[in-house]
Amino acid sequence: MNTTGKNINITFFGESHGPYIGLVIDGLPPGLKIDNNLIKNNLLKRRPVKKINTSRIETDNYEIISGFYNGFTTGAAFTVIIPNNNTKSEDYSDLNSVPRPSHADYPASIKYRGFNDYRGGGMFSGRLTALWIVVGSIAQQILEKSDIYVGSHIYSIHTLQDKPFDMVSKNKATLISLNAKGFPIIDESNKENFITLIEKTKSSFDSLGGIVESKIINVPVGLGEPYFSSIESYLSNLLFSIPGVKGVEFGKGFDITNFYGSEMNDQFEIKKNNVTTSSNNSGGILGGLSNGMPILVRVAFKPTASIHKTQKSINLNKFENENILIKGRHDPQYVSRAVHVVTAVINFAILDLLMFKHKKDVL
Amino acid sequence: MNTTGKNINITFFGESHGPYIGLVIDGLPPGLKIDNNLIKNNLLKRRPVKKINTSRIETDNYEIISGFYNGFTTGAAFTVIIPNNNTKSEDYSDLNSVPRPSHADYPASIKYRGFNDYRGGGMFSGRLTALWIVVGSIAQQILEKSDIYVGSHIYSIHTLQDKPFDMVSKNKATLISLNAKGFPIIDESNKENFITLIEKTKSSFDSLGGIVESKIINVPVGLGEPYFSSIESYLSNLLFSIPGVKGVEFGKGFDITNFYGSEMNDQFEIKKNNVTTSSNNSGGILGGLSNGMPILVRVAFKPTASIHKTQKSINLNKFENENILIKGRHDPQYVSRAVHVVTAVINFAILDLLMFKHKKDVL
Amino acid sequence: MNTTGKNINITFFGESHGPYIGLVIDGLPPGLKIDNNLIKNNLLKRRPVKKINTSRIETDNYEIISGFYNGFTTGAAFTVIIPNNNTKSEDYSDLNSVPRPSHADYPASIKYRGFNDYRGGGMFSGRLTALWIVVGSIAQQILEKSDIYVGSHIYSIHTLQDKPFDMVSKNKATLISLNAKGFPIIDESNKENFITLIEKTKSSFDSLGGIVESKIINVPVGLGEPYFSSIESYLSNLLFSIPGVKGVEFGKGFDITNFYGSEMNDQFEIKKNNVTTSSNNSGGILGGLSNGMPILVRVAFKPTASIHKTQKSINLNKFENENILIKGRHDPQYVSRAVHVVTAVINFAILDLLMFKHKKDVL
Amino acid sequence: MNTTGKNINITFFGESHGPYIGLVIDGLPPGLKIDNNLIKNNLLKRRPVKKINTSRIETDNYEIISGFYNGFTTGAAFTVIIPNNNTKSEDYSDLNSVPRPSHADYPASIKYRGFNDYRGGGMFSGRLTALWIVVGSIAQQILEKSDIYVGSHIYSIHTLQDKPFDMVSKNKATLISLNAKGFPIIDESNKENFITLIEKTKSSFDSLGGIVESKIINVPVGLGEPYFSSIESYLSNLLFSIPGVKGVEFGKGFDITNFYGSEMNDQFEIKKNNVTTSSNNSGGILGGLSNGMPILVRVAFKPTASIHKTQKSINLNKFENENILIKGRHDPQYVSRAVHVVTAVINFAILDLLMFKHKKDVL
Repeated sequence: MNTTGKNINITFFGESHGPYIGLVIDGLPPGLKIDNNLIKNNLLKRRPVKKINTSRIETDNYEIISGFYNGFTTGAAFTVIIPNNNTKSEDYSDLNSVPRPSHADYPASIKYRGFNDYRGGGMFSGRLTALWIVVGSIAQQILEKSDIYVGSHIYSIHTLQDKPFDMVSKNKATLISLNAKGFPIIDESNKENFITLIEKTKSSFDSLGGIVESKIINVPVGLGEPYFSSIESYLSNLLFSIPGVKGVEFGKGFDITNFYGSEMNDQFEIKKNNVTTSSNNSGGILGGLSNGMPILVRVAFKPTASIHKTQKSINLNKFENENILIKGRHDPQYVSRAVHVVTAVINFAILDLLMFKHKKDVL
Repeated sequence: MNTTGKNINITFFGESHGPYIGLVIDGLPPGLKIDNNLIKNNLLKRRPVKKINTSRIETDNYEIISGFYNGFTTGAAFTVIIPNNNTKSEDYSDLNSVPRPSHADYPASIKYRGFNDYRGGGMFSGRLTALWIVVGSIAQQILEKSDIYVGSHIYSIHTLQDKPFDMVSKNKATLISLNAKGFPIIDESNKENFITLIEKTKSSFDSLGGIVESKIINVPVGLGEPYFSSIESYLSNLLFSIPGVKGVEFGKGFDITNFYGSEMNDQFEIKKNNVTTSSNNSGGILGGLSNGMPILVRVAFKPTASIHKTQKSINLNKFENENILIKGRHDPQYVSRAVHVVTAVINFAILDLLMFKHKKDVL
Repeated sequence: MNTTGKNINITFFGESHGPYIGLVIDGLPPGLKIDNNLIKNNLLKRRPVKKINTSRIETDNYEIISGFYNGFTTGAAFTVIIPNNNTKSEDYSDLNSVPRPSHADYPASIKYRGFNDYRGGGMFSGRLTALWIVVGSIAQQILEKSDIYVGSHIYSIHTLQDKPFDMVSKNKATLISLNAKGFPIIDESNKENFITLIEKTKSSFDSLGGIVESKIINVPVGLGEPYFSSIESYLSNLLFSIPGVKGVEFGKGFDITNFYGSEMNDQFEIKKNNVTTSSNNSGGILGGLSNGMPILVRVAFKPTASIHKTQKSINLNKFENENILIKGRHDPQYVSRAVHVVTAVINFAILDLLMFKHKKDVL
Repeated sequence: MNTTGKNINITFFGESHGPYIGLVIDGLPPGLKIDNNLIKNNLLKRRPVKKINTSRIETDNYEIISGFYNGFTTGAAFTVIIPNNNTKSEDYSDLNSVPRPSHADYPASIKYRGFNDYRGGGMFSGRLTALWIVVGSIAQQILEKSDIYVGSHIYSIHTLQDKPFDMVSKNKATLISLNAKGFPIIDESNKENFITLIEKTKSSFDSLGGIVESKIINVPVGLGEPYFSSIESYLSNLLFSIPGVKGVEFGKGFDITNFYGSEMNDQFEIKKNNVTTSSNNSGGILGGLSNGMPILVRVAFKPTASIHKTQKSINLNKFENENILIKGRHDPQYVSRAVHVVTAVINFAILDLLMFKHKKDVL
């Protein structure tokens, strides 16, 4: 189902090569002055950059078609549509008969009995993530009023790593600075190496994956609901909906299993009149609830599935093996674009969970 | 919220030291002959084993109190309650004032303004996972009729690793064999090393975490729904609700980021009249949908938070630092118990997603 | 599905002749001191009264088995079970083969392929409405703190009518007085006529239906959400789930169609510094939202389906016509019991909708 | 919230005078050839007719912008937008300061703190019901393949009545014939009287309400789910979301309370090898489930709130009484338009409930 949300519902629609993609946001408060500059800037950061991405550039000229009047949200369903302009459908003529390796083409073709709009991957395309930027930007605008900040960086591409986040620091400036970057890394001295790696991979018609790391600060203690609406359950649910994600971990993540409890427990202490922990291996989350420390999450993206090399595939009509050489414009890596989507998803999720907190005040 | 499910809804209730824990399963078909032996055996496997776990042994004498008549499900809400017998609440007298490090005590105490039932961790206790075994066993019973099998093993405890799953094999016997074991590992020759590690850790009052790896075979191509009900989104949502989980990954997982697209793409070929892929780095999932290959998922559990060592904490009433030495009976590791919970969760999720497939046949 | 609720989720379970009926309430705030006297008194009012109801008397000794500690709600799922004691299952031996006219027996038998627990009507029994009393009483306790009051009376039984509610008055005393009565009517001088009618009908082995009218005062202006969570949509959804309901109307209801717009429009005026309307044909609801006037709703209950007369039915096993004479203990009318259920349902719905209002304050 | 649906989710968006209204349908099967003629014809029937309705005529040129490819549904979210063309916003300049009697203006203005788009009633406008026609037509197309037919007629306008439906007949021709009419009444000899009444009311600047009666035939026995997804609960939930509805009743409805159980019970008999009942006072529904007889529902619409007469209102800015004379183009009655919306709503609801039936076949 294309709708999610606990207190604010969002419904996605559209396919890569249809006339529009769009989303309905249901549950925004009335009277919110939408910051269109923030949305546009965030969309711009997600857009491909020539040297290191695909050459399909979408202008993302979104239009708000409901729930908005005189510059403010009205409290009604808030709907945004974005036209698809730069589509070259001829490049995708037969994905339902000869599916691309590691794309959704094959299972989608079976699931939808050949009726799916396969052009450009249809609804499974990364194109749809532009919508996350819209809703994430609106959430960001609201959260920052409460001094809650989300920031992400490219933790790694292939085996090349950025400096990781300091796990205990609540420094807001770092996050703001990352949010201002199109290619957000902490250690700028390493940027050239990233670019070189990407360009080299592009020229060899291959592709790269990587890891995005995000940090959320100033979330109130106790955010998150038990079980299926815990911070970890909810965030992972949304993050795995981004195309290409194969892993999600919090705090020390998988590496936590290599240590003893005595090494990994985050012991409490009062510091400057605040409850704090000296380490933050739990990534700010205990029992699914925020403990007041920074929340840390890492998201693994597989290498771009579309590569310009001959690969083995099958012809589903003839039911025989058939090689495929994918045409079209491909991303040698999309981590530098996905990093902005991860930030957007988190902004939305945190805002949505925050509303649980407040609604209980009725009682 | 304590309810989840797409087509079959499950609602959990209960706390570690309350009179009962229980769950309501809503959406089971009528006329299902419940296999109580399977449930009991699965509960037994999750139960602590003296040498390597806590000494709190619960008999898990569950009672079905609705939706069941003459040995069959009726189609009404199916409710199970399990009494809590072996509780020593005196051991947990002041968790709301002096919270245990890396437990939910602190955020729960703030969130529920001190009214939460903190005894034994309350609703955040691993005790509740016995309920997953019940619903998972019922799902298992239904799935195996369609030849769908789920099996899990202890992939690692601390740095000690079992042999990993073969990623492409659909061998059913391996899974059945693992399902029969209380301490499921593939390489039995390594078992002694695991036990030694655990006992040694226990005697040093410390604790261990580890990784569970699961495999699902014979799922139909196209299982999973787009976005938030994709196999990855849904499974991760449920898996992160198990206490102690800090990471979830599919297929090659985080490691996939270290390779090129040309190395990681799973290329199609027809083999013995079946569509297959020679590698399975995607873990059987493309675009959130099953591609017919085995589904592979790994779940990271942090070391048991309760250790019998003096740790730093705080007294929330006095708002000052105060050391804590946790009493009670603790698990030096719970991976060998959680492995059965992971299997149960997956059985439920796969069954629940399967129902999407069938309901569309109306049309 | 057996779960409902927008902000507070409730899950019903149990059958008429099973060991327990029960419900899970998910979303209650922590720290609520449960008023057990109120619950018990409300349960008592719903219980049958000898002369005018069935002789199956259930003691309704409910037990709270989760979400409750030291006299207060904990914030966890709050679960209540009520044992079924006074069951005479032998009276219901063959409802799946010879269904009772105007009962759920026949469609339930087909739907659940004969596996439903037909004894006493199974999950379709009015027995389950005891659970509404529990959740309704808790909601009532919370609402009355905000000066919101719900009261109901027997508007009619058969063609015998009570005095209707004054549609514009916000008199709280009337509602409190009705809430104190087991047989709530406004015009007590008429009570003898009601009792006589019921007794006469009982002695002729027949049954009666009737209409319940309810009023809700002091609801804030703007309560209700658009479309499917409007006050009317939500209340009717819940009210039609009570066994026997065949109609729901608000304000002037069906009768409003007999008048001109100029007669029925509720014109605004400011009175004593308050926005008010001189008439209240809309029943306090415009566009699904409360306008500050009393909310008025009427609910029609069909005559008790079980009558002690020979009726035509069919034998589904033999697939031939077969007369039925229903044994067991039947209600000549249940309106005087259902009236308390209607009040309970409304209390819950209003509380649940109120939480929408508050959760938006986050933003 | 603007989303509803059990198996097929629909999300409404848009306001009366915004650029578009629209809806997302999530859960349609792939490969459905959309019958655009049916949608267009149904939209045409809902459109105003000059003499008896408002003169605001919308062309309803809908556009499908997702989930549709090469003439078939793709299985992705199916989105339709309809531009608003014929808006005269100047007529609605100050509804938030001087609210129209019996419109949503006043509570909406309070609820949304003045930020709602009040022009033409915003999201509370009957304009949005055009969207129901779209989704209802698609459902109708699917249902008729299974020989399930829904038909509705104008049961009454003001005190003038059409001939009611025969409650037991399953005659398909009657329903098909009604579906072909723009002004659907059973007794055509009465049509002139209806038109005269409407024209007379129009010329006196007043307005009328009325009752719509609908019948559904050939629904399988056992359709509907217990409690909140019963046929009655679900239908009433959706029907009350149509602007102007003040009452919903099934079968004999409110009138059933005037009779004895022995008169109202629908006794079973086998006729021509079918289970049937000689009467159908239950309206085809027992315990919320279909019993195979025709389903009958009546929906009461209040008189059009907008009348061209001076009415009392208030100026919310000045907080003083102020008369209002509503300008703009108004409907002397909208029952002849709403009747088509009721049919559409029912078609959707029945289809959505049908999917419950099929999804259980997995097990």
